[in-house]
Amino acid sequence: MIVNMSEKATEPEIAHVIERIREAGYQPHVTRGVSRTIVAAVGNGRRHEIEALLVAPGVENVVAIAQPFKLVSRQVKPERTVVNVGGVAIGGAGVVVIAGPCSVESREQLLSTAHAVKKAGATMLRGGAYKPRTSPYDFQGLGLEALKILREAREQTGLPVVTEVMSTEDVDIICEHVDMLQVGARNMQNFALLRRLATVNKPVLLKRGPSATVKEWLLAAEYLLSGGNSQVVLCERGIKTFETEMRNTFDLAAVALARDLSHLPVMADPSHGTGKQSLIAAVSRAAVAVGADGLIIEVHPCPERALSDGAQSLDFAGFEKVMKAIAEPLRKAAVSVQQETNLAKV
Amino acid sequence: MIVNMSEKATEPEIAHVIERIREAGYQPHVTRGVSRTIVAAVGNGRRHEIEALLVAPGVENVVAIAQPFKLVSRQVKPERTVVNVGGVAIGGAGVVVIAGPCSVESREQLLSTAHAVKKAGATMLRGGAYKPRTSPYDFQGLGLEALKILREAREQTGLPVVTEVMSTEDVDIICEHVDMLQVGARNMQNFALLRRLATVNKPVLLKRGPSATVKEWLLAAEYLLSGGNSQVVLCERGIKTFETEMRNTFDLAAVALARDLSHLPVMADPSHGTGKQSLIAAVSRAAVAVGADGLIIEVHPCPERALSDGAQSLDFAGFEKVMKAIAEPLRKAAVSVQQETNLAKV
Amino acid sequence: MIVNMSEKATEPEIAHVIERIREAGYQPHVTRGVSRTIVAAVGNGRRHEIEALLVAPGVENVVAIAQPFKLVSRQVKPERTVVNVGGVAIGGAGVVVIAGPCSVESREQLLSTAHAVKKAGATMLRGGAYKPRTSPYDFQGLGLEALKILREAREQTGLPVVTEVMSTEDVDIICEHVDMLQVGARNMQNFALLRRLATVNKPVLLKRGPSATVKEWLLAAEYLLSGGNSQVVLCERGIKTFETEMRNTFDLAAVALARDLSHLPVMADPSHGTGKQSLIAAVSRAAVAVGADGLIIEVHPCPERALSDGAQSLDFAGFEKVMKAIAEPLRKAAVSVQQETNLAKV
Amino acid sequence: MIVNMSEKATEPEIAHVIERIREAGYQPHVTRGVSRTIVAAVGNGRRHEIEALLVAPGVENVVAIAQPFKLVSRQVKPERTVVNVGGVAIGGAGVVVIAGPCSVESREQLLSTAHAVKKAGATMLRGGAYKPRTSPYDFQGLGLEALKILREAREQTGLPVVTEVMSTEDVDIICEHVDMLQVGARNMQNFALLRRLATVNKPVLLKRGPSATVKEWLLAAEYLLSGGNSQVVLCERGIKTFETEMRNTFDLAAVALARDLSHLPVMADPSHGTGKQSLIAAVSRAAVAVGADGLIIEVHPCPERALSDGAQSLDFAGFEKVMKAIAEPLRKAAVSVQQETNLAKV
Repeated sequence: MIVNMSEKATEPEIAHVIERIREAGYQPHVTRGVSRTIVAAVGNGRRHEIEALLVAPGVENVVAIAQPFKLVSRQVKPERTVVNVGGVAIGGAGVVVIAGPCSVESREQLLSTAHAVKKAGATMLRGGAYKPRTSPYDFQGLGLEALKILREAREQTGLPVVTEVMSTEDVDIICEHVDMLQVGARNMQNFALLRRLATVNKPVLLKRGPSATVKEWLLAAEYLLSGGNSQVVLCERGIKTFETEMRNTFDLAAVALARDLSHLPVMADPSHGTGKQSLIAAVSRAAVAVGADGLIIEVHPCPERALSDGAQSLDFAGFEKVMKAIAEPLRKAAVSVQQETNLAKV
Repeated sequence: MIVNMSEKATEPEIAHVIERIREAGYQPHVTRGVSRTIVAAVGNGRRHEIEALLVAPGVENVVAIAQPFKLVSRQVKPERTVVNVGGVAIGGAGVVVIAGPCSVESREQLLSTAHAVKKAGATMLRGGAYKPRTSPYDFQGLGLEALKILREAREQTGLPVVTEVMSTEDVDIICEHVDMLQVGARNMQNFALLRRLATVNKPVLLKRGPSATVKEWLLAAEYLLSGGNSQVVLCERGIKTFETEMRNTFDLAAVALARDLSHLPVMADPSHGTGKQSLIAAVSRAAVAVGADGLIIEVHPCPERALSDGAQSLDFAGFEKVMKAIAEPLRKAAVSVQQETNLAKV
Repeated sequence: MIVNMSEKATEPEIAHVIERIREAGYQPHVTRGVSRTIVAAVGNGRRHEIEALLVAPGVENVVAIAQPFKLVSRQVKPERTVVNVGGVAIGGAGVVVIAGPCSVESREQLLSTAHAVKKAGATMLRGGAYKPRTSPYDFQGLGLEALKILREAREQTGLPVVTEVMSTEDVDIICEHVDMLQVGARNMQNFALLRRLATVNKPVLLKRGPSATVKEWLLAAEYLLSGGNSQVVLCERGIKTFETEMRNTFDLAAVALARDLSHLPVMADPSHGTGKQSLIAAVSRAAVAVGADGLIIEVHPCPERALSDGAQSLDFAGFEKVMKAIAEPLRKAAVSVQQETNLAKV
Repeated sequence: MIVNMSEKATEPEIAHVIERIREAGYQPHVTRGVSRTIVAAVGNGRRHEIEALLVAPGVENVVAIAQPFKLVSRQVKPERTVVNVGGVAIGGAGVVVIAGPCSVESREQLLSTAHAVKKAGATMLRGGAYKPRTSPYDFQGLGLEALKILREAREQTGLPVVTEVMSTEDVDIICEHVDMLQVGARNMQNFALLRRLATVNKPVLLKRGPSATVKEWLLAAEYLLSGGNSQVVLCERGIKTFETEMRNTFDLAAVALARDLSHLPVMADPSHGTGKQSLIAAVSRAAVAVGADGLIIEVHPCPERALSDGAQSLDFAGFEKVMKAIAEPLRKAAVSVQQETNLAKV
């Protein structure tokens, strides 16, 4: 931490800051510049006491130097974490594809989808039982009934299952039925829920909040790791920006950045990332190319009849196309460029 | 709802949309333009089925016409709601000022603050018992001990008390001790929590999420009203934007807009709205001027020693100045302008 | 500037940074912490050379300590600047109100508006001659003809006139006809235009760009001051965020912040700030309360027939109401609160 | 255009809207719902007159149905445009890679870079002569001297050259020296510049503004096409969001979307898109995978000594790695996934 004194700071003000840094458990280290003085707080003390010095007289600002997260950091653990979900390895050499409907709507809907996505190459199944809906008048999910259907689908297909948990009260029953618990974007900073999930013996898929910085996202994961659950997979699903043509702005560079900063696997959700059926193949390819450890994609037997997220769901044929798209080589390589541009010169 | 067909939509595609609109419980109403056709869905049907038509062949986009919220709307209830919190009326003619520390840190800290803010004119007390902190390594609140201290402060000062609730599991114990429950910004779309709070017999202070549109905020309130709790006060506390000089971008126009769209009282939180001690007096005045029904302001005996939010907390003298600032007339009136500019011409 | 070495930085890497800091004209000052080393660059050297050290081996990040602007800073010039525009003082004790149509559409339209806004208390006139329009198919302004009409309006009413300049090529002709030149939000970082305006003998109204931080805005003003024109007035007009219910997010706290950081006058534009006729009175009051030195408001004889910005323009009666609203005392003062809440307790 | 009347609209208010729609050159088409009436404006009239009806009594909102751009639209011209830049085809089957320094700093710096990037496979050269810098105290470019150096580089290497134009006054001299003119992000809505570039006989690289929606970006291109220049290449370079860990948020989905909406080629700029040297290889791959027609990448002989953008520039070895990365097949294909997850199950 560095405390940057204003140009007009007096000697007693500087002395006060030095004293407070010592009280906070750090060693003060003073640098006197031409027009101003900065005081570094060296060591491991109580960070908030340094942050609060922002309001001490003569202080212009306080700058944090070290990253605030620890256990999730690659500096602490350089080798990449592989999370095992019912036999599927997330974070290894392959790209895991989780597919399925936004909501479990009926036994028939889910089972047909599960078989279809498995056939197309998906390695895990998704399906919402408890749905976080913006409006109280929208479909809220089938709850326990959906959990039972998900379990049956896993038994029939062998695909491990992930579903969203919205409340600490549902944690136990969900753990009984599925292989992985998802924390939805809106609950990324539901700290009571994170603390509870830190104590379960199931992997967690932690979606990035729509207004969460990569740092805040990693700190949310830190709640899980520091509480005892190290089976965490991050998932980028788009952030909220001024652009309205798409549901969210899909921050694919953040996938690469999160993998740089953390050893945890990072997946990407093209369905929420764009909200547009027509873009999903293209951005799925991009997500794989940027280094994502997996994709989670919404698939529905008949998107225009879906009870939720129809506009961004693929039908079975659409999902097959996406699976093919991500298996292709990079279509336009730099090598081919030169040949073609030579032709263009003729 | 309006379904806008693309310019190349075929007759069978239009016919399919018309049929689906009927199946969804609406009456279709077709308008054929020069280059395209639009189909309105008239009546009260299943909205999501129309939304999902976005993926039907020949559909370019689907536009919602009516606002999605109902019970919170001023169209449903034109007269303004007044929420009574332990004898203090929020939403009436006056401006309610809630003040107190970010976190309850000790009995002495809270009691001294409670007496000080009362003396300066505050009408309610705030203090965090359960703290939503970005990092698991930050101070997480004193919990039940804090609730007891808050209760004692109310007994000593007569100020009704509000504190944040982070989990459904804490609802009962918090209800026993305080007068009003706050839903924090990060939990604005914690729907399990909203559903639980819809059933309690206490007023709720619902903060706007950092990336929530005004519409989403009102829909979160709709969860409370539709679930049975109509004692809801909205609170603008800043949204997350690209500007980093302040903690958040304080969206004061949204206070006016929310009061236009809804009958619920709307407060403003200048402390989180700016994150900067030095701006709080100015933006508090602005919040009152824009029509806010109240302010919630962080006050601490010694901000630079606060366990949380020190940088945006006022000390007692600072809080007194804010109370005076909001009691002043608008300093620079248009009338005075002309006199002065006349002078300037001399 | 502070160069923060990564935890694994080697001694040669640290030595390299120290050498580069010296080469860049600064004095290096090393602080060795428990887990990492930081090197401060003290003095006045070539800043970009320190910034570029971000890519040197072993460097984790580079942090700027001092604000990048100089002449616009209150640290350089503590007393507030007053800008004289044809006899009207902006930045003094009064609030200047500039009113008029978005575009000059005809002689009659502008003259009737000029007389009406003067009668209601406005002290300056606005009107667009050269219009920056998102679409090439929208009305692009009357150009020189509009400038002549603006000049006539000033002669008839005595109101000084401001109009937008979009291109270096129009600077001379505009300077001949009006009292103040406006740099529109989209041109805030049109540096060729700023450099040209730095050399004219007319005051400049510099709007904040829709995605400009307060720092970038002040640096745009620095172009004008460092180039020789110190008659600069800043104007907040809303920034672009995820909220779509209003045209922009009106950042009123930035008005207070800009006045804290700079000695230049700061105005506010409620018309573009919200884009909503119905909110203008409320946010105009708020702008005055937060300390704005003036307001700029769009007024049109018949907004629903305006060639541009009709949806956010006031008619004459609406403008009169705004002028009254900003002359009122703060309606709901903290003092009145207590009386009323006491009543509420009865 | 659709005018949505409020629930309380009276018959005379509806009649007024119908009359105004007729006056604006459209045919009104009325749909009466259960609780409200909507009026569609059918045909081709004066759009702004319908938009301004938002302020007519009884109107709740006005919704545009058709996209506002025309000549850039794929609905108007379904086949993709190929732009020929000095013999290099942008928008064809290959990926064009433009590389070079942010600023031309010296003859030696540029020539060595030009030869290095050509050797690594780049097909065009970039280099700034006139630099848009946030601060007036930063390096502003070598101007005409830089143009001459760029010309020499083209003669030596055969690589066509692109450079940024900041002002209408520089257009002629730049056209004399280079093959393509770039409109920088901050000038995307510098309409005077766009109008001037619409008349030149050189292709234009139009960068997306940091707060421009895809629609606004396409409308900026519409200025060029409607003014007579159809040789336009779009370039995504990141937008401004709340995320501060990277310089911008690289909106790769917008590349796919812009290619869906428009027939113009769309490039991507990973250097500005992320601002981070370490992420450029990953996001370059992603840009190619999402369908970008080309990349523009900053390369400098010694990034830590660059006069601008050092932190995001690659050195020659770094650029070679990027070229290899984009030539690789998609590393992790869905097919390989299943094999590996099967292994994981063993």
